[in-house]
Amino acid sequence: MTLPRSLRWTGDHLDLLDQRCLPHTVVYRQLTHWREVSEAIRSMAVRGAPAIGVAAAWGVVLAAKAGDDLDQAIEGLRASRPTAVNLSWALNRMQTSAKSNGWVDVHQLERLASAIEAEDRALTQALVNHGVGVLPEDCRVLHHCHTGAVATAGVGTALGVIVAGHQRGIVKHAWLDETRPRLQGAALSAWELGCCGVPATVIVDGASGLLMRRGQVDVVLVGCDRVAGNGDVANKIGTYNLALAARAHGVPFYVCAPSSSIDITTVDGDAITIEERPEDEITHFRGELVCASGVRAWNPAFDITPAHLITGLITEFGVIRSPSRESIASLPFAN
Amino acid sequence: MTLPRSLRWTGDHLDLLDQRCLPHTVVYRQLTHWREVSEAIRSMAVRGAPAIGVAAAWGVVLAAKAGDDLDQAIEGLRASRPTAVNLSWALNRMQTSAKSNGWVDVHQLERLASAIEAEDRALTQALVNHGVGVLPEDCRVLHHCHTGAVATAGVGTALGVIVAGHQRGIVKHAWLDETRPRLQGAALSAWELGCCGVPATVIVDGASGLLMRRGQVDVVLVGCDRVAGNGDVANKIGTYNLALAARAHGVPFYVCAPSSSIDITTVDGDAITIEERPEDEITHFRGELVCASGVRAWNPAFDITPAHLITGLITEFGVIRSPSRESIASLPFAN
Repeated sequence: MTLPRSLRWTGDHLDLLDQRCLPHTVVYRQLTHWREVSEAIRSMAVRGAPAIGVAAAWGVVLAAKAGDDLDQAIEGLRASRPTAVNLSWALNRMQTSAKSNGWVDVHQLERLASAIEAEDRALTQALVNHGVGVLPEDCRVLHHCHTGAVATAGVGTALGVIVAGHQRGIVKHAWLDETRPRLQGAALSAWELGCCGVPATVIVDGASGLLMRRGQVDVVLVGCDRVAGNGDVANKIGTYNLALAARAHGVPFYVCAPSSSIDITTVDGDAITIEERPEDEITHFRGELVCASGVRAWNPAFDITPAHLITGLITEFGVIRSPSRESIASLPFAN
Repeated sequence: MTLPRSLRWTGDHLDLLDQRCLPHTVVYRQLTHWREVSEAIRSMAVRGAPAIGVAAAWGVVLAAKAGDDLDQAIEGLRASRPTAVNLSWALNRMQTSAKSNGWVDVHQLERLASAIEAEDRALTQALVNHGVGVLPEDCRVLHHCHTGAVATAGVGTALGVIVAGHQRGIVKHAWLDETRPRLQGAALSAWELGCCGVPATVIVDGASGLLMRRGQVDVVLVGCDRVAGNGDVANKIGTYNLALAARAHGVPFYVCAPSSSIDITTVDGDAITIEERPEDEITHFRGELVCASGVRAWNPAFDITPAHLITGLITEFGVIRSPSRESIASLPFAN
């Protein structure tokens, strides 16, 4: 089964796959105003660091076509979610282009957004090719959250490695952290792997340690929302606990990080702003209260995994083993 | 607000609090046959290692009153859940008593079940008194699953320590792992702490590492379903990942273990049978599919935390620091 594309520019508006309706329904939203793109990012109709970067670029094009104030649109889009650096990365490129003329060249911005989207397709494919190279034969991979095709404009990152690894006969089985509170693993990753014929089993996030204790995990693969200059990684909440379990069991822990997610201007993990999302993502499920009434919840969307727990960063340029400030600074784009 | 009792023997039948209806409704089931007690344990209408031990003892009384085959009833009750040793511990005592005469003495069994229940009240109170002694001043405690009053016939274990610690001005705040898949932390622990006026915040199980990284946790307290002879602990799935996070941050990790949960005949954690529960506890929520359709789930109810990660076992006899085969064998009941 072919996976639906995460987004599609029609020349007139942006058709955006509403990931909140997956896996049961494939719904595209027609977005015609940059504020709708901003709201789609904030509400996680579109999610996945690479996909929100590309969507934001198209948001700038919508603003330019409508003759809106571009600086206001860019800052509005930038504020929609704080942690993934891809958003700022794409918006900075659009902003630089917009400022290169004395006037707003809509076609130039459209070509750049299209290029950013095409780059994402190319770099996720390159990343996946490098990623398959780290997998041991006949391996069982554990994955957190969702990093598949619809989280990007291309073939996905960590989940793309799993799919390609299975196609090449290297991946035997995938274990999927369900990934509370939004269950991206149970819903999205399980759906993509099902579409691609990869045998997969969902577990609760707290079960990874027992699974490793039983020798059932050969390698852990995750994505990321931002890599700091020293190699610390911000990724979906629960990633750090998973990395600690992997370290305790000597299981290799790889982070798939396209260069668009690497931010050498952020000194380390502590300098990354971690988004805190509404409490009701934890206290309610589909509108129904699941907690005792009146209790508070704390809902950080991401956590920080320190560089020393990371076996390697898988980028489109290759694998950086034991990432450090020096090895990250030596990447081509960092110069 | 007074908490409802987990169970109450009426002289005729067992009134059992249905914990599946909490926190929103307080419902008692009238159980008149041992098979209903067995089913209540299996379906987790009654849960918490101490509470299921006491409930099983009353199940034997029901069997004796009805003139049922006692050996069959005891083995049926024993098979209802495999991991918590309290069940076997209570049933073995009932069986020994039943065999002490040539005939079934219903009143003797009733007195013994009543004694087991009274002991649980006394020993949880003693355990709580010892537990409060390990808490640092003004502490923020992180707790997993539910170990409160309704999980026992008394004041609870780990959650009882938190409540008592708050009453004595030592506990400032409780962080509650929601505890997937059944959300005992979000529902039951949050409810009990709310009833007792203890400030509490629910987090997803994957957020404990970030919380510790931010210095927000002074001590971790959990209960247990079985302690092996070497100090390894079986407890609710997710406990092991939490213990690894605590170790990484130097946060003390205490396990509340009444002697009824300590099984010196089990050599170590690997020898403990871990119950695997139905997949739909993960794939469905209140009857609604939350996973991609067709995907499998693996649902172990417990995991194993090795003794070396445990700062201390809190028992009714006192605190065993750095538990080992030797220190556990030196407990009064072990002789």
